[in-house]
Amino acid sequence: MAAPGTDLIDALVASLPDGVVVVDADRVEKYRRDRSQDPHAGTPAAVVRAESAEHVQTAVRWAAEHGVAVVPRGAGTGLSGGSSAVDGGIVVSLERMTAIDVDPACQVAVVEPGAFNKDVKAAAAEHGLWYPPDPSSYEICSIGGNIATNAGGLCCVKYGVTTDYVLGLDVVLADGTLVSLGGRRIKDAAGLSLVKLFVGSEGTLGIVTRAILRLVPAQPAGATLVATFPTMTAAAEAVVAIRSGLRPSMLELMDQPSIRAVESHRPMGLDTAAGALLVAQSDAPGTACAAEVESMRAACLAVGAADVFVTDDADEGEQFVQARRMVIPAVELLGELMLEDVGVPVPRLPELVDAVAVIAARHDLLIPVVAHAGDGNTHPLIVVPRGDDAARVRTLVAFDEIMIAAIGLGGTITGEHGVGRTKKSALPAQLGADVMALTRRVKDALDPDGILNPGAML
Amino acid sequence: MAAPGTDLIDALVASLPDGVVVVDADRVEKYRRDRSQDPHAGTPAAVVRAESAEHVQTAVRWAAEHGVAVVPRGAGTGLSGGSSAVDGGIVVSLERMTAIDVDPACQVAVVEPGAFNKDVKAAAAEHGLWYPPDPSSYEICSIGGNIATNAGGLCCVKYGVTTDYVLGLDVVLADGTLVSLGGRRIKDAAGLSLVKLFVGSEGTLGIVTRAILRLVPAQPAGATLVATFPTMTAAAEAVVAIRSGLRPSMLELMDQPSIRAVESHRPMGLDTAAGALLVAQSDAPGTACAAEVESMRAACLAVGAADVFVTDDADEGEQFVQARRMVIPAVELLGELMLEDVGVPVPRLPELVDAVAVIAARHDLLIPVVAHAGDGNTHPLIVVPRGDDAARVRTLVAFDEIMIAAIGLGGTITGEHGVGRTKKSALPAQLGADVMALTRRVKDALDPDGILNPGAML
Repeated sequence: MAAPGTDLIDALVASLPDGVVVVDADRVEKYRRDRSQDPHAGTPAAVVRAESAEHVQTAVRWAAEHGVAVVPRGAGTGLSGGSSAVDGGIVVSLERMTAIDVDPACQVAVVEPGAFNKDVKAAAAEHGLWYPPDPSSYEICSIGGNIATNAGGLCCVKYGVTTDYVLGLDVVLADGTLVSLGGRRIKDAAGLSLVKLFVGSEGTLGIVTRAILRLVPAQPAGATLVATFPTMTAAAEAVVAIRSGLRPSMLELMDQPSIRAVESHRPMGLDTAAGALLVAQSDAPGTACAAEVESMRAACLAVGAADVFVTDDADEGEQFVQARRMVIPAVELLGELMLEDVGVPVPRLPELVDAVAVIAARHDLLIPVVAHAGDGNTHPLIVVPRGDDAARVRTLVAFDEIMIAAIGLGGTITGEHGVGRTKKSALPAQLGADVMALTRRVKDALDPDGILNPGAML
Repeated sequence: MAAPGTDLIDALVASLPDGVVVVDADRVEKYRRDRSQDPHAGTPAAVVRAESAEHVQTAVRWAAEHGVAVVPRGAGTGLSGGSSAVDGGIVVSLERMTAIDVDPACQVAVVEPGAFNKDVKAAAAEHGLWYPPDPSSYEICSIGGNIATNAGGLCCVKYGVTTDYVLGLDVVLADGTLVSLGGRRIKDAAGLSLVKLFVGSEGTLGIVTRAILRLVPAQPAGATLVATFPTMTAAAEAVVAIRSGLRPSMLELMDQPSIRAVESHRPMGLDTAAGALLVAQSDAPGTACAAEVESMRAACLAVGAADVFVTDDADEGEQFVQARRMVIPAVELLGELMLEDVGVPVPRLPELVDAVAVIAARHDLLIPVVAHAGDGNTHPLIVVPRGDDAARVRTLVAFDEIMIAAIGLGGTITGEHGVGRTKKSALPAQLGADVMALTRRVKDALDPDGILNPGAML
């Protein structure tokens, strides 16, 4: 990739309205990294804070003409370095494009990529509707980033992930062309599934400037079950048993170090002696909710749950969900985090949990595990004691070993965060040479000069 | 595309086990057309009835080497000419690859493409599990064809379409390489969404030889509501009202000519004076089912339903669903059918229905309309009186006009049958030049010599 000279940057600045292009080193600094704090992030020559699809087109056309790298960026909450800046490239920030327009008759929200997930949920709720995907970071992450990574969340065990709710996309391609894909129709078999191809493509194929998101009628709040287990293995067995006949709307798991980190950060009476804590919800309607929760309770007790607590008080239930959401910030207080996102077929969860424990012991590292257990998706949180450079080196080894362990169990290196830059070295081990070659062919077809998010995923 | 000489065909026959390659004209004849009875279907030089992925690879490698067209074929129930044979090409039939292996712990079925949809459902049911997608033809259509067209069905108003259930695919690419995509894991954000790209690609990008399908716990049978309305417009209003707050598991609509065709074919006491018949189901658990059906009843009455009948007897309910499924065979008795598959945003259903009526009147044609109304997906059934060549010409015009009407309403030319060969002339009008060019780029990247299903979709 070429680094543009001052004259070219001046031309970019001049081609867009005042204030759209940022070049001051101080202000550029905050666009260099996402939440993964990628140490290899570069320094961009400019940041384009687009206010419209036309601005994005102008920036991409300029970049295409001059062979400059373009890194798209949403809210910067990514956890895999998907929006790490590239030296001499530009960052196209979508943070200013936040419009949300709900069409209640069609049950869709037409959304700009910078809108926060929580704001889409709120706008839908005004019409009695619901946008299900709910990454733990939903209060601070953007829809554009959700689409780029095919983000999941807590309710996707029942309601699916981002791609299941994307009906249409406007995308600026690598040559600056704006294409409009899909629409407000629910079913559409006309042509290739290009909408689905762009979801999860991490900004390597195009930049999303508008999305049409499917909404569904709001669900009842439901009931919450909290169960403690002597071991993660027993808890994982409960997860498999629950899924076999029920459709819980949440099925989350915390291990002992996670429980202790949360309880020490914000005491709420969690059992810090428990080996694992399961937080499950049912939103089945009417009397079916209590029946589903009772079935879950029985499944937990059958595999040796130490304690099971059930509540149909929504606020009380939400406290436990908050405890689950608090794991990452609480563990972050113990040191720097390297956040894993590995997934396996659900019945292999116990093996994955065991493998992580072995890796933690081998490298003398603390690795709390929190999981969207109902989907087999786990977040081992590798803690690097601050200032401990030797531990940092061991962490990098453990990070890779956990991904290799997941692949060996028929799993994936990333369930919902994306490959970005921090996981791309392991992607060939998961996909194999032929699928990597196929991926490269699609990438080259859509971005022949490789200007879109170079270094991410591939 | 080249037409292979006798020596090349002999080489193909010799490269595969006895009986796999069929070249007799009589036996080849039945592989020329799918159920669309495409009059432009060609005559293939040979049919490869593959028994394994290796057979498919052998055939595709041979075709790639000699520049021969390859048309993949499932059960031949396609309605858009997606598997019309090509003169001098080969047909790769997957009809012999019918293995189904259910993994109840992972809740997946690992399925060969020739397996019938109904057999996947039955295999899942043995484990208390369910494969939701249910095209009306589910008893005779294959999973491979379902994947090729991203097939829908009756329950997808609540449970989604085929792509929502495909976790993994083995695909033979245009050069004969076999790639394995996805797996038994529920969430996977590693790399591009290639699984989703192949779903709905109608055999133009590769040939699926194995699929990993997601299963869910079996649902209760639920209750059925049948309502009659004076007009299709009133019924469509009921559909919009029902969807706004409820999640019915079925929401199907028949217009008066459809009702009359079914009643005359198999009398069951349907009200042939009604303007429209709505068949809805709820599979909400427990007491919520009756509550949901009651809400649907109220919604129907509020927009002027003439009569509403409710039953929680599964067999009685199934009779009405059978009546709905019988529309196409019943209308087929009135003449040859040209089957439309247009969809629109749900609130625009009444306008689409009106537009079809205007087109029918203008061309003096009978066009019964049956609809997966909850998804905005309709099947106008254009009847060509047998032997009436003038009507056949008018039918072709009406067929195109209906697609253009749907596009004008923000809709699609195909909701679930695919573009194939019978609808491809309208695809550019829906997608526009830029999206067509993008589609072509993906096609060329994966099939540079254009040997895979040439003439379908593009």
